[in-house]
Formats: sequence, structure tokens, C-alpha cells
Amino acid sequence: MTSTRRILITNDDGITAPGLRALVEVARDFGEVTVVAPDKPQSGMGHAITIAEPLRLYSTREVFESAVAYQCSGTPVDCVKLAVDKVFDKEPPDLVLSGINHGSNASINILYSGTLSAAMEAAIEGIQSAGFSLLDYSWDADFTAAKHYVRKIIRRMIERPLPPRVFLNVNIPKGPLSALKGIRVCRQAHAKWEEDFIERVDPNGRKYYWLTGVFTNFDEGEDTDQWALEHGYVSVVPVQFDLTAHHSLSLLAPWNEENTQDA
Amino acid sequence: MTSTRRILITNDDGITAPGLRALVEVARDFGEVTVVAPDKPQSGMGHAITIAEPLRLYSTREVFESAVAYQCSGTPVDCVKLAVDKVFDKEPPDLVLSGINHGSNASINILYSGTLSAAMEAAIEGIQSAGFSLLDYSWDADFTAAKHYVRKIIRRMIERPLPPRVFLNVNIPKGPLSALKGIRVCRQAHAKWEEDFIERVDPNGRKYYWLTGVFTNFDEGEDTDQWALEHGYVSVVPVQFDLTAHHSLSLLAPWNEENTQDA
Repeated sequence: MTSTRRILITNDDGITAPGLRALVEVARDFGEVTVVAPDKPQSGMGHAITIAEPLRLYSTREVFESAVAYQCSGTPVDCVKLAVDKVFDKEPPDLVLSGINHGSNASINILYSGTLSAAMEAAIEGIQSAGFSLLDYSWDADFTAAKHYVRKIIRRMIERPLPPRVFLNVNIPKGPLSALKGIRVCRQAHAKWEEDFIERVDPNGRKYYWLTGVFTNFDEGEDTDQWALEHGYVSVVPVQFDLTAHHSLSLLAPWNEENTQDA
Repeated sequence: MTSTRRILITNDDGITAPGLRALVEVARDFGEVTVVAPDKPQSGMGHAITIAEPLRLYSTREVFESAVAYQCSGTPVDCVKLAVDKVFDKEPPDLVLSGINHGSNASINILYSGTLSAAMEAAIEGIQSAGFSLLDYSWDADFTAAKHYVRKIIRRMIERPLPPRVFLNVNIPKGPLSALKGIRVCRQAHAKWEEDFIERVDPNGRKYYWLTGVFTNFDEGEDTDQWALEHGYVSVVPVQFDLTAHHSLSLLAPWNEENTQDA
């Protein structure tokens, strides 16, 4: 065990994203930072891993002042796996921070987000972790207020570690610090994207489709991340990766059976 | 509401996979089958969606006897989204079945699996769904016993629909029907892959890495999918997509705060 806290930072917007830089600037005050981030945008990659192709990992030390940095050709989850195995040489970091994402990862977006999947992969590895997102898709987003809250939340994670197999999905409203109302610990809202693919025809007369959609919140609860964000609060959702619908186990118990050639 | 049950089938091994064909053969007895499957292998794609590129969708009617089939250039989740929006014209199918996957998707594998993410996407859309996997990675796997259990489970899903936002992760051991011991309703085992990237050097002298790993089960419970499979049972895990660690909400409640310029 080293005395200096070792922090891995990644994201899904890629190594050049301003949000990644903002996170590095905050994390540096808490320990020794190593960045292993995708070499290109990987938004929407969810928990994808690269199986059929090899991965590349290049040192790009010059990208950040006083932080070791690598760019990886894979997904955000690949970045975490490769970092733990090769960069940290199987001695996992003390903390994995992912983001700051350009755009919301609240509610159902957690499933599609490479940023949050990286944090989840860290939690699977038994490492304290969190994913941070600012509700501003712009590359020129102002991360000032976000950095204030990210700092506060990292401090709390260090003061009192999260339970095993739990990590955080933190979303921060857009706006100046004075407009933000505080922190709300929440559950994931029940919401979804209503797909609306845009159909076009290429110069060869063949159709192609662009994924678009409208985010629709079905959840009227005031204890959700979506509610918190819409009311100016930073949302903090504790997240787990046991997907079992425990409440349905007893319902399905009659399905248990020995042998079955009677079907 | 049509009188004929409309069934969408997809997978992550791609449109030509024998496991997909096996699933179509079973599902045909329960309704009108439409296949929308990836045009190439998409294993390990998790819940990835395609944002930065357009999607292609081509009719490939000749692939299956008496089933309408399309191949899609995207991920398994893209297949479900595009099928619901364009193939079913926003009138969702009654049932989405994904698989039969060549290889296990038990335990933590659910997170990496495109096959299971397709079933999850269907559940998000409010459609009854299940993902099926055979514990045999071989392209020449024998699906005879698997088909027996898939049939049984589809019948049960139809007899008594699953609760809202719940779908099934079904894994089937390899072997003849006589060797299988029955069905166990289970929770997801706590397990992970211990990464071990293989480092090689390309002809230009640059390193590259292949993802490999060893599956490690930390869970000694006899109520898990991993236990069931190791003991010859078909595992059925009810799965949800609310990832909130509800047991940690009260623990984190002290983080709630109004205003925060005091940090």
C-alpha cells in the first residue's frame, strides 16, 4: 500500500475533452492522477468491450501538466480493464473517476453511457468509483460549478468509502454555482428515449437511418435524479451492478423444477 | 391489437448464427416471427448504441423459411430500437426474444452481452422479453436440449406475463436433454473476469494487447445462476434495469444539502 492515493481518470468523450481536463484539475488535489482515456469519442458505447480486435495504448504525457496520460483505442470499459492490468500492473488504483461527461447521464442514460460503464467496471474490480456528468453537451461548456461539486463529492467518498459494489452516478445541472441548489441523493428515474429514426436516402438510392429520440420521463417521484436535476439540484444516485429483480424471485419460484422431459 | 402474436427475434452473434436459427424454429410455434439481427458478430457490445454513424437495414428474407428477416448494421440494442420504430412502425411486438447465444451470459456477463442488452432494451420499451444462451461457444453447438427449455420458458412467459420492467436471463448448460436437471430461478452471482491482456509487438515494433481473462466466481450462494449451471440446471434470472442501490440510499442521505457555497 503506497501512502499516496492513486487515482485513475477516464471518460467516454475522449482524451481531448475539456470535461476530462476539468476532472483532472480537481482530482490532482486528492492524489497522483493517471489518465487512460479513449483516443476518440465513445459516447453511447455502454458496457461494450473489444473482443475481436487488439487494443492500442499510447503514452500521451504531453496532454496534461503533472498527470501521466495514455490514450487507448478501445471503449471506456476497455480503458479501465487495460489500465488496471497494464498501467497499474494489477495493483488497482484507490479511486476511479469518470467524466466529466459533456451531457446528462441521469436516469436510463446510465445504461448507454460509456462514462458510467467505466465507473461500473471499476466497481466490479472492487475499486471506489464515480461517474460525473454536466447537463451541457457543448464542447465549450463551463465546468466551474461542476468542479465545485465534484471536489465536494470526491472529498466525501474519501472520508467515508462507499459500500462494496456500489458506485455513484453524479449529474450536475448547467449554470453558475449560485444557481445550483445543493445535492440530492436519489434513485434512478423511470424514463426512456422514444426513438424516432430519421430516414434518408444515399446517392445510390439506398435508405439509411439516423438514431434520434425524445427523452420521456414516466416517473412522478420527487426522489428521482430527473426531479432533482429539473429543480436545480446535483443528483447523486448510488448504483449497483447486481441486476437481479429480487422482488420477482418469489413470483417466479413456481418455475423451479427437477427434470423436465415431461414438457 | 392483432390476434396473431408478433415476435421479434435478435441476437449478438449475427444474422447467420445457428443459435438464432434455433430460436426462430422454436418461436415460430408461438406467433408471427420477424428477425432483425446484426449483419456481423456483435458479442461484447453491451448496451452500446450507434450515435455517430447512420444505420443500414436490409431485408434478407431468404435467410429463414417462413420468417421475415432483416440484417442491421448496428448493435443488438440498435436492432431492437430500429425494429420497433421502422419494422413494426411504432406498434411494438408482443414479445422480444434474443439469442440463442453461443456461450454463457450468466452472472456478470449480462453487462457485456449484446444479446442480453437487446432483451433489456425491449423491457425498457415495455415489451415482454428474454435472452437465451447456451454454454457452448462453438458455432457447431447442439441446440437440441436448449430448444426444449426455450420452448418451455416461452410458454410460461405467455401463460403469465412478467411484471413490468422485468425480463429474463436464461442460460442453459451444454449437454443432452437427459443430462439437464431442470430449471432454477436464481439471482445473478457475484463474479468477475480477472483481466489478463496478452501483449504482442506488431511488425513495426509497436505493442498491442488482446483482452483475455479468467472468470472468477466469488459467490458461494446456492441460489445463484452460476451455481445452478455448474450443477446441471437451466438458470432463469429475473432482471431489472433500475440500477439504483436502494439499500445505500439511507446511508448516503446525510449528503443531502441545500445550497453549497460553504464548501
